[in-house]
Amino acid sequence: MLEGVEQIIHQTDPYQLASRKPHNENTVIKLDNLKIGGGNFTLIAGPCAVENPEQITKTAKFLKEEGINFLRAGAYKPRTSPYSFQGLGEEGLILLGRVKEETGLKIVTEALDINTMPLISEYADIIQIGTRNMQNFPLLKSAGAINKPILLKRGMTATLNELLLSAEYILKEGNPNVILCERGIRTFNDHSRTTLDLGAIPVLKEKTHLPVLVDPSHACGHSSRVPALSRAALSVGADGLLIEVHDDPASALSDGLQSLDLPEFSKLYNQIQTLAEVLQRKVN
Amino acid sequence: MLEGVEQIIHQTDPYQLASRKPHNENTVIKLDNLKIGGGNFTLIAGPCAVENPEQITKTAKFLKEEGINFLRAGAYKPRTSPYSFQGLGEEGLILLGRVKEETGLKIVTEALDINTMPLISEYADIIQIGTRNMQNFPLLKSAGAINKPILLKRGMTATLNELLLSAEYILKEGNPNVILCERGIRTFNDHSRTTLDLGAIPVLKEKTHLPVLVDPSHACGHSSRVPALSRAALSVGADGLLIEVHDDPASALSDGLQSLDLPEFSKLYNQIQTLAEVLQRKVN
Amino acid sequence: MLEGVEQIIHQTDPYQLASRKPHNENTVIKLDNLKIGGGNFTLIAGPCAVENPEQITKTAKFLKEEGINFLRAGAYKPRTSPYSFQGLGEEGLILLGRVKEETGLKIVTEALDINTMPLISEYADIIQIGTRNMQNFPLLKSAGAINKPILLKRGMTATLNELLLSAEYILKEGNPNVILCERGIRTFNDHSRTTLDLGAIPVLKEKTHLPVLVDPSHACGHSSRVPALSRAALSVGADGLLIEVHDDPASALSDGLQSLDLPEFSKLYNQIQTLAEVLQRKVN
Amino acid sequence: MLEGVEQIIHQTDPYQLASRKPHNENTVIKLDNLKIGGGNFTLIAGPCAVENPEQITKTAKFLKEEGINFLRAGAYKPRTSPYSFQGLGEEGLILLGRVKEETGLKIVTEALDINTMPLISEYADIIQIGTRNMQNFPLLKSAGAINKPILLKRGMTATLNELLLSAEYILKEGNPNVILCERGIRTFNDHSRTTLDLGAIPVLKEKTHLPVLVDPSHACGHSSRVPALSRAALSVGADGLLIEVHDDPASALSDGLQSLDLPEFSKLYNQIQTLAEVLQRKVN
Repeated sequence: MLEGVEQIIHQTDPYQLASRKPHNENTVIKLDNLKIGGGNFTLIAGPCAVENPEQITKTAKFLKEEGINFLRAGAYKPRTSPYSFQGLGEEGLILLGRVKEETGLKIVTEALDINTMPLISEYADIIQIGTRNMQNFPLLKSAGAINKPILLKRGMTATLNELLLSAEYILKEGNPNVILCERGIRTFNDHSRTTLDLGAIPVLKEKTHLPVLVDPSHACGHSSRVPALSRAALSVGADGLLIEVHDDPASALSDGLQSLDLPEFSKLYNQIQTLAEVLQRKVN
Repeated sequence: MLEGVEQIIHQTDPYQLASRKPHNENTVIKLDNLKIGGGNFTLIAGPCAVENPEQITKTAKFLKEEGINFLRAGAYKPRTSPYSFQGLGEEGLILLGRVKEETGLKIVTEALDINTMPLISEYADIIQIGTRNMQNFPLLKSAGAINKPILLKRGMTATLNELLLSAEYILKEGNPNVILCERGIRTFNDHSRTTLDLGAIPVLKEKTHLPVLVDPSHACGHSSRVPALSRAALSVGADGLLIEVHDDPASALSDGLQSLDLPEFSKLYNQIQTLAEVLQRKVN
Repeated sequence: MLEGVEQIIHQTDPYQLASRKPHNENTVIKLDNLKIGGGNFTLIAGPCAVENPEQITKTAKFLKEEGINFLRAGAYKPRTSPYSFQGLGEEGLILLGRVKEETGLKIVTEALDINTMPLISEYADIIQIGTRNMQNFPLLKSAGAINKPILLKRGMTATLNELLLSAEYILKEGNPNVILCERGIRTFNDHSRTTLDLGAIPVLKEKTHLPVLVDPSHACGHSSRVPALSRAALSVGADGLLIEVHDDPASALSDGLQSLDLPEFSKLYNQIQTLAEVLQRKVN
Repeated sequence: MLEGVEQIIHQTDPYQLASRKPHNENTVIKLDNLKIGGGNFTLIAGPCAVENPEQITKTAKFLKEEGINFLRAGAYKPRTSPYSFQGLGEEGLILLGRVKEETGLKIVTEALDINTMPLISEYADIIQIGTRNMQNFPLLKSAGAINKPILLKRGMTATLNELLLSAEYILKEGNPNVILCERGIRTFNDHSRTTLDLGAIPVLKEKTHLPVLVDPSHACGHSSRVPALSRAALSVGADGLLIEVHDDPASALSDGLQSLDLPEFSKLYNQIQTLAEVLQRKVN
């Protein structure tokens, strides 16, 4: 924003393990034969929350048939109000475990505190640390001690340096598999929930070797705008997407307004595949 | 940002001529055989300012040979400091006139006040109203009385409703040819000059029938990030781009850091053409 | 926001005439026996707009009897929508001229363009340049050529350096009497129209010798919050206030929600006088 | 920010226990004979962190002699970088315990995770939940189960509704003693660390019965601006201040730039007492 600021940032980059400088090669995270980062473009899709066995099974089977490999769904939900649905907790994890067994989908789910981290890591293939916890340092440290990849979402008001220093907390504890995620920042804008900062992607690509995903669903808050932002995220150089999908958005217990329904997701997935080809990216 | 806000916006949309509602068809602006809007994707390129005959001629000829149809360059420059280069003024317009004659390029240049508006309209094919003047209402009214298309840039702190109401000032005076332009908003971000709000594009497409361009150069302030943001702008549904190009960015009198040099522009132009094809957009 | 940024600002302060450095003494602006700046605390009050003879006369006489010396009211109004009341124009100026003759109040009113500047300067004692015109550079230059003090409001998205560079445009043309005004900035906040940046006042006092007023009415947008913010502005070190007062806020043609009625203003004026005494400031 | 938004907020206020509506009287929190809220104005002062026995003892004795009743100092520090000083942990708590015994000062210190909450509550009189943890919901719930007042700082990007819903998490678990704290929000401003939102104070006073403090030290980040903002916070209606004080700011292990030294604090304390008298507030 200010002349000279950029220079200072580069001079004083306080992160080390997250830095591009000593690591010429991009970090590529491997789960069986699946890869996140490098030339790959990863689609993680699913509902905001596990709600019940039917909902999660139906969505998971649909995604599997579409060719998707990663299912996202929350068992522990960070909700602004104590009166909102807080997630199914351990019961939700158990449902995710069953769905994983049935479909082979990799599970991405969120951890909210240090005590449930070990339990979640038994069920999850990738553990998410959400935007409100980006600077929950004890949680970051506990994620650093876990043997699972961590999906770290940018705080709604975090600078990129702050995001990378939070990644550094995890890396420093010995977990090298950190995936960053841009999900919108707070601005004066009133046309969407937050403002998706796609300009952050090329900057992150200069600064760090870690993969960077984009979550257009939470950023904009309206399903009608998710496809356009998804195409833009692919084109700007992101390593993948987090997309909210629900088999019946109107009845979702949380975030229904921003969830694609199943046919909308199919359509978007086709667009992404076509666009990825011309951009020489491998969708997985 | 707030639940319910969106509804209010739609209920109370205070603009009429700019509104999507009574106009099912997109506005397509025609200059000879060139079209802006509809399925077209328009590239407007050139230096921040006309600096001297050699610079503007060299850049213009290069762009013409590349296949570009629109040249942007400022004769009257709005500069934050009174001690900065303020543009060549009328001399700059005369140089633009000569370049137009030589190359046939359409000229896009900025008007800063109501008194020079008629003079500028003699030389310009499209008159730009800059971000700092988005709510300069006398200037908007004078633009409404001119028989040339107006390129209206979004203010750095303007909501979309405010942008559309500024367009309405022009439309109401009888000039139907208004082109909107997203060029970045002010946020807490320190990684770029401003934050390019690509999420505004699908929203504007819902709200208005007017064409919407994107200016990634001013938004991010770094030439290295312009190609990625240009691809994203095309993919998100914009109707074209404003790109800063300079034959020698290091010696530019203004905005050199964000200007592509000529080979960088060629490379970007190729990428855009390839991507536009798969997105079924016609580059002009 | 970023470590080291402050230092850069100080190293590269690009304004000269506005700078504190070569001017140890505060600028004090004199209008007859009235002073703005120094140890004085100046109250400028009045309606958003001149609406009709009765309204402006009633309010002016009330303010005069209260002991107020400066009347603010717009004849030319910058309105977001072309369909909103745009002010009475020259007729409004004539009404302000009559009220000035009757009451002796000094008149503060806004100029929107370079062509009406001379006319306005015949009626106004202080000419306001509004927040939307803070970077309307031709208007700033024309204000620099006028022999009247200029009240320059900070843009809703302007940094303090940008504000001071806009002041520099006026000072550089030969008009030394510039008064700055903080009136709220655009942020993610949804509890008020804008966020009053009172922290800017001590910073401006370090950076510049020019007087700095605060406009709490436009900043917060609710009359119920104006008294608290007015007390805070006095306590934080501002040189005065711009307060919207209307004899019948519910029927105001603009900004009624944020206008104090006459008894509310009297009450606030008393609070300010008591507080100013303990802070050793002279109210005028 | 948007017309109509305010109405929606009031219609849908989703917090209940925190709401002003069913509680006509302000919550007043009592610790022995000390009171927070009501007509009282509470000063909480001390260093960012407990660094060593000499530092904390010297500062505590100084504050006690000045007449201050509340000492703030962190034992567990949330630091942006994993390479920064992280606080003395339990050793810091033990030092705070000794200082409390010697001086009788009430201790205010921060909890970062659910597991250390019980230990901290043995030493602290008031437990702080910091700005980065405002939406750490498991931490809020654990604070609701503790029998000590909770000082809840507003997140740097939180709306007032979000702040009140976080308070609601604590209240709902059975702890009625919640103190809110405004400490600056993230904006485009580059003149200070964050933008102190003093306009939030009168709004919070309309919305809730809970006491509201202001932390000008963290908000502005410069000790030279703390006195002006402290006076403004008192004048705008806050219930008290959190002030960083260090016996040797230049050698502080964290936040030295924003800490007052001991003579600066004495001077500010005198100003506050004088101003509080005319505003009919009781300093404690």
